Amino acid sequence: MPRYFLKIEYDGTNYAGWQRQKNAPSIQQCIDEAASKLNEKPISSYAAGRTDTGVHARGMVAHLDLAKDLADDRVMAALNFYLRDLPISILAAKSVSNDLHARFSCYRRAYQYIYQTRRAPLALDQNRVWHVGRDMDIDAMNQAAQFLVGKHDFTTFRSVHCQSASALKTLDFMNITRDGDLVILDCHAPSFLHNQIRSFAGTLHKVGIGRWTAAMVKDALDAKDRHECGPVAPSMGLYFMRADYDGFSW
Amino acid sequence: MPRYFLKIEYDGTNYAGWQRQKNAPSIQQCIDEAASKLNEKPISSYAAGRTDTGVHARGMVAHLDLAKDLADDRVMAALNFYLRDLPISILAAKSVSNDLHARFSCYRRAYQYIYQTRRAPLALDQNRVWHVGRDMDIDAMNQAAQFLVGKHDFTTFRSVHCQSASALKTLDFMNITRDGDLVILDCHAPSFLHNQIRSFAGTLHKVGIGRWTAAMVKDALDAKDRHECGPVAPSMGLYFMRADYDGFSW
Repeated sequence: MPRYFLKIEYDGTNYAGWQRQKNAPSIQQCIDEAASKLNEKPISSYAAGRTDTGVHARGMVAHLDLAKDLADDRVMAALNFYLRDLPISILAAKSVSNDLHARFSCYRRAYQYIYQTRRAPLALDQNRVWHVGRDMDIDAMNQAAQFLVGKHDFTTFRSVHCQSASALKTLDFMNITRDGDLVILDCHAPSFLHNQIRSFAGTLHKVGIGRWTAAMVKDALDAKDRHECGPVAPSMGLYFMRADYDGFSW
Repeated sequence: MPRYFLKIEYDGTNYAGWQRQKNAPSIQQCIDEAASKLNEKPISSYAAGRTDTGVHARGMVAHLDLAKDLADDRVMAALNFYLRDLPISILAAKSVSNDLHARFSCYRRAYQYIYQTRRAPLALDQNRVWHVGRDMDIDAMNQAAQFLVGKHDFTTFRSVHCQSASALKTLDFMNITRDGDLVILDCHAPSFLHNQIRSFAGTLHKVGIGRWTAAMVKDALDAKDRHECGPVAPSMGLYFMRADYDGFSW
């Protein structure tokens, strides 16, 4: 069965996250329904990451095993046709070796978290950013972020519902920049724990507004205690940006 | 009566433009209703520009004459409170001299038009850009744009419904740039005719996709004939960006 990688953009606002749920609409369900029409029999997709309720994607990667060989362009166009009424778009489709698995072969996931610092409410960017409503000190945030980069036990920064066997993870990169009134946190790692980035984003927000020092973030990390985490930042500011694979590129 | 300038952001998608209409919701009506609550008696605003149905703003300027002197911050916060359920945000409010009129004192209006060239449908930017769906040649577009800059009879580029006494206008600036998959047209002038920018944007789109040469845009301008205009570009790509006034700044 020919395998295809899909690069997907979605507005997660009205979805209960990526993963199929019994009683709530999910991105996966929409993709699978579209793919099942194309495939003419039921089919299920596998994704690089399981985003939470309200989290967006600009470059989620998922794979599908179709019954028939189809041209990449045909797969993209047909899926977009079946998804046409939904805020989900297939940015690219590409035939890949069956050895490549969207989840298990992925060696790097990149996310972005966007804070809006301006005081005025959001008119054009509702549900696209976290409206912090005050300025943030990005130098302090970057200083704190450097305590998080590297291999650590991230117990402090994972949800109590996290199903990962270990809290030991390596954060390869985290950087905070300014774009007008926006403050943008970029990070990437081989993999993340449940709620890890929103836990980072909520904690660094405390640093940005001067409630926490950078050193307090290091203390929180070292405590390996979920109670030491800052609040989990709201989902609407988070974007799954890209997933990388050895021997594969768009 | 103390006069206040307001800087306003709005998502025009579900509004029949700026100007108050008998049977359709307008941005002006929402602002006036909010301002009338603050003012405790009916009040009407005047804006630098009258955007069409579906057109957005990141920096519309309007003025209000309130019955009482209020602190700028109070005006901004109160209006945003009354507008809280709507995609309209007061970015700033500032007390000004009664000589300043949002419409008549404005010496420059700046607009932006955003084209999305990628083939894939829009998930996150629905109603925010014109989805052109193919690449555009911005060098050719810039070449054509230079024929439009300057003082001209813009009869070709104005709506048949335009109420301006003369089609003679001066376009001070027009520039087309690329930002990833987006192509962005920026322009400013002392004032514009009805549908002028969307007429420019639709005509330059023809140039961008290779259907028109830059010289054909000059011919269309010189013809002073509405029938020589390219199609009017859709409203969702257009943003009112800023209005400038002598002796006033935010």
